[in-house]
Amino acid sequence: MVTLLSFAIVKMLKVPEHQVAGHMAKNGVLGPLVDDSGKFYKPLQDNDRGSAELSFYTSLAVPPSIRSFFPAFHGTAVVPASDGSGPHTHLLLQDLIAPYTKPSVMDVKIGSRTWHLGHSEDYIAKCLKKDRTSSTVPLGFRLTGVKDSLSSWEPSRTFLQTLSAEGVALVLRKFVSSSNSDDSRSDPDCDFAAEVFGAVLERLVELKAWFEVQTLYHFYSCSVLVVYEKEKGNAKPLVKLVDFAHVVSGNGVIDHNFLGGLCSFINFIRNILQALHQFPGTAIFYGFYS
Amino acid sequence: MVTLLSFAIVKMLKVPEHQVAGHMAKNGVLGPLVDDSGKFYKPLQDNDRGSAELSFYTSLAVPPSIRSFFPAFHGTAVVPASDGSGPHTHLLLQDLIAPYTKPSVMDVKIGSRTWHLGHSEDYIAKCLKKDRTSSTVPLGFRLTGVKDSLSSWEPSRTFLQTLSAEGVALVLRKFVSSSNSDDSRSDPDCDFAAEVFGAVLERLVELKAWFEVQTLYHFYSCSVLVVYEKEKGNAKPLVKLVDFAHVVSGNGVIDHNFLGGLCSFINFIRNILQALHQFPGTAIFYGFYS
Repeated sequence: MVTLLSFAIVKMLKVPEHQVAGHMAKNGVLGPLVDDSGKFYKPLQDNDRGSAELSFYTSLAVPPSIRSFFPAFHGTAVVPASDGSGPHTHLLLQDLIAPYTKPSVMDVKIGSRTWHLGHSEDYIAKCLKKDRTSSTVPLGFRLTGVKDSLSSWEPSRTFLQTLSAEGVALVLRKFVSSSNSDDSRSDPDCDFAAEVFGAVLERLVELKAWFEVQTLYHFYSCSVLVVYEKEKGNAKPLVKLVDFAHVVSGNGVIDHNFLGGLCSFINFIRNILQALHQFPGTAIFYGFYS
Repeated sequence: MVTLLSFAIVKMLKVPEHQVAGHMAKNGVLGPLVDDSGKFYKPLQDNDRGSAELSFYTSLAVPPSIRSFFPAFHGTAVVPASDGSGPHTHLLLQDLIAPYTKPSVMDVKIGSRTWHLGHSEDYIAKCLKKDRTSSTVPLGFRLTGVKDSLSSWEPSRTFLQTLSAEGVALVLRKFVSSSNSDDSRSDPDCDFAAEVFGAVLERLVELKAWFEVQTLYHFYSCSVLVVYEKEKGNAKPLVKLVDFAHVVSGNGVIDHNFLGGLCSFINFIRNILQALHQFPGTAIFYGFYS
């Protein structure tokens, strides 16, 4: 721990360039930082959530094939907080975006419910309101951040969270297109759909198989993060789970909330891939399949 | 329709003997009736739910393999209401229990949410309260009725709905045992588990495959009904979906709420079968698997 601490102190820490969701370390707000060696410093919250996320990482017990869905964990480090409040304990995690030059990033908060029965009534009411007014309740997930750093396309969070099913499908198609401006007249070309969503689907189906049987954890308010790079020859995407401040014990029950939302997200991805196969070379999307 | 009506009128209608959930036609309450030709008369509610359930049955469009999960529908019939209020329109359905002499019956309301955004605020608040205080939110389903008519074991609805995961597992194991008294000292023998839950699991996995892709319907407050008979040589169970008063259009999104709950129920059934294989001949259940 001492080694990690002194290591961290000599590093230059900066605000992540491609963060799309969560608190951002800007304008005096407490938020995550990154160094130039691929580490992500996430401020440990001074409450149950902070200790929950720390204990999740320290005691993470999943099959080896599933471990790859989680960011690497390197302990904690006390470094100056981004809000100028002085030294603060941070989780020291893998900076998932570090290997990318111009990443396309998408953060998808999974589940039709972001609260659990252990939360306070106030917190439940707040979550329920947001779940009902976002796509969380109807779709079982909500897009919490999307960015293409090549084209600088970055729809606002408010825009993303209130999208209808058709709106979500359109954003997902833009995410894997070479041109994805906000211009609604242009149909997304889905040039990267086969390569990126093909691999994403494969990973998500692996994850789903685990969620069908695992009863250790319930992941509330947890996200699937998808990252890929258009410019590199190989656009193989990264698929990770992030944000474990609201993980609770499964107590012998599968995480039906996460699983249901994950299956819904999978179906959106699969629909886009199916449209591609049915109408190769066209940019037109013919709606949903049942 | 005229034929059905006159047919119905000359039939002797009676209160179903083995109904385990829903309104019951007793003590002047409006409830379903059955005749002796295998028809189930479900009073059509005088509101949106009545018309929703009728239109669900009249327009049901599912693959042939999935059709077998739904009770046969024979139109509507006006017959005297069970509450003495005079002629009332009833849905004329297949009486699923009719072929059984001493049925074991279980009604499982699937989903961690029994309401949808189209419901009134009052209705949502009422459902949410019941969902939170029953096993619906934590488990993704609740047992709404269980009965073994051979042993007359019939746990109360209140007892069933507030069960913990362990409690639900115990009731499920009693459901497939030759002796299932309320005596907590005796371990269920699970004599019928392999035959009954083996076949139930097979059917539920078929249903799950459909729910992973179907975006036509969202089934709120819908139940899986399981029926089998211990005394007959062949205890092959019946697995049906019932109660469609709160079915709404899926609008291009899978029913992640039903699917998640269904997967959770499947996992309970699978755990019981796995314990059986791991410890054959023993009546002891060694807890949950992850």
